[in-house]
Amino acid sequence: MHVAIIGAAGMVGVKLTQALIEPSARHGLEIEALTLIDVVEPPLPETFQGELRREVRDLSAAGEAQRLVEQRPDLIFHLAAIVSGEAERDFDKGYRINLDGTRELFDAIRQANLSSGYCPRLVFTSSIAVFGAPLPERIGDDFHSTPLTSYGTQKAICELLLADYTRRGFFDGIGIRLPTLCVRPGKPNLAASGFFSNIIREPLVGQPAILPVPREVRHWFASPRSAVGFLLHAATIDTALIGPRRSLSMPGVSATVDDQIEALRRVAGDAAVALIEERPDPAIIAMVSGWAPGFDAERATALGFTAERDFEQIIRAHIEDELEP
Amino acid sequence: MHVAIIGAAGMVGVKLTQALIEPSARHGLEIEALTLIDVVEPPLPETFQGELRREVRDLSAAGEAQRLVEQRPDLIFHLAAIVSGEAERDFDKGYRINLDGTRELFDAIRQANLSSGYCPRLVFTSSIAVFGAPLPERIGDDFHSTPLTSYGTQKAICELLLADYTRRGFFDGIGIRLPTLCVRPGKPNLAASGFFSNIIREPLVGQPAILPVPREVRHWFASPRSAVGFLLHAATIDTALIGPRRSLSMPGVSATVDDQIEALRRVAGDAAVALIEERPDPAIIAMVSGWAPGFDAERATALGFTAERDFEQIIRAHIEDELEP
Repeated sequence: MHVAIIGAAGMVGVKLTQALIEPSARHGLEIEALTLIDVVEPPLPETFQGELRREVRDLSAAGEAQRLVEQRPDLIFHLAAIVSGEAERDFDKGYRINLDGTRELFDAIRQANLSSGYCPRLVFTSSIAVFGAPLPERIGDDFHSTPLTSYGTQKAICELLLADYTRRGFFDGIGIRLPTLCVRPGKPNLAASGFFSNIIREPLVGQPAILPVPREVRHWFASPRSAVGFLLHAATIDTALIGPRRSLSMPGVSATVDDQIEALRRVAGDAAVALIEERPDPAIIAMVSGWAPGFDAERATALGFTAERDFEQIIRAHIEDELEP
Repeated sequence: MHVAIIGAAGMVGVKLTQALIEPSARHGLEIEALTLIDVVEPPLPETFQGELRREVRDLSAAGEAQRLVEQRPDLIFHLAAIVSGEAERDFDKGYRINLDGTRELFDAIRQANLSSGYCPRLVFTSSIAVFGAPLPERIGDDFHSTPLTSYGTQKAICELLLADYTRRGFFDGIGIRLPTLCVRPGKPNLAASGFFSNIIREPLVGQPAILPVPREVRHWFASPRSAVGFLLHAATIDTALIGPRRSLSMPGVSATVDDQIEALRRVAGDAAVALIEERPDPAIIAMVSGWAPGFDAERATALGFTAERDFEQIIRAHIEDELEP
């Protein structure tokens, strides 16, 4: 089969590519061709034996989505997005990339469906940002999407389009609402949510980190490894089991910052914890107060999606995947 | 103030216009100018003493929304839409009118807001079609929107845009999810929901009507008079009380077809009821099975929106407004 990844140069895109081409992969997909797309050139996956295309495209530009669809990929992962902070700062860019770019893709597929019966599996990464405060401690699968950011609004709109285009038979869509991914590898991130990763990743390698919120703040996490697992499961699941509600809140770990810190202590000791400096930032505290504390994720769990069970497992996944290569 | 009604030639638009210009009106709005817009010419409201414009425009056409916004109406009612059945038959037209047309309007206001601080009140008519089966007997205010039609999808997307544009301060938006309006005046309607009105309106004037669904079917109703009341209340309410969740399920009457028929019997006797012929239609039965049986409408009720309390009141409102002029 031919697999296309839109947003292949991002953190999740790179890890997904690696998981797809690993010879030991257990995803069961027979991949003959792989098309990697992003606005910057995706890294070269060197071990892949099949037909590989790397394409620098902005799918929101006229005709670009159509050119991808002309290649008739059997499976499309649509991971590309302007992140939350940028979509909030730049209203036009956020709507153009996150909404119009996605709609261009969906409509290009629809045209191909109408002309030739083309009907790919489409895995779309949504976000828990489709939910906005006030929120219950555990958000159920029937809870409404009332986002408090333009990013969350754009994701919620794409979920609605995904369901309608799937209902119409234009493609076989599934949306997965990712928890906040933690521990994000790489440099400390300026995103408002970056500290959740910083306070684990930096102390693990002997570096200091700043904690800008109180320790009782509770949020919803999964590892990047789990995110890749969600995507692979969404790519292979029998979608007849899903029904018309095509977007699912993924499982994860509901943890307070204090839970994070105590898990770090168990894994790396007091010395690591001592590297965390508490420096409250009212702007970040205000933002985080509207974020989701947890989900029941009953539908996704029943459909076989799995994540870590506690924050210590999330830290150990990070150590195995990033620090013990 | 200057009031604009988009969709002024429709049934609700005409009734709203009438309510706005009545000298006895209790809505408390001082209306100096009224702009009536639709794709066909809205009827002339003869008693209006202020400045009146009637404009034939399709707001989804390039530049049309901008031309409306240049007139800087203080209050905009956006009622225009392609109805459910047509949006389902004609995918492109439904998205163009119901989604892109609304977005053109919102963006034209945003541009005016950015350039001059213009910030009108915007009352948007959404629909209970944003909900799709399976549904609880009484849908709560936190229940998610999972529409099963393209029309419902388009309305749900516009609700999300309305909330985001309001949050950003581009306008002061409020969305009202109308129940199925009953009794619709005029000729028998070919819409799937038309029979709910036909089986009351026709027997009241001695004409036969066809009932295509079983009597135990339950649905959610309000009179056209209540719809106008919702719109006027939405136009004048202190929106600071609403919070960021800007779309509200309106109050109404949860009634079975049997409740409808027994109310008709109390108002008009057995002879009227005998004019109803039961002729089950599997296609209509299937469609109606996914419709909302009822709402708790707690938020809207707390905010002062009111509707009829039982179906007999709905019939009496029809008789007063349509048969005793």
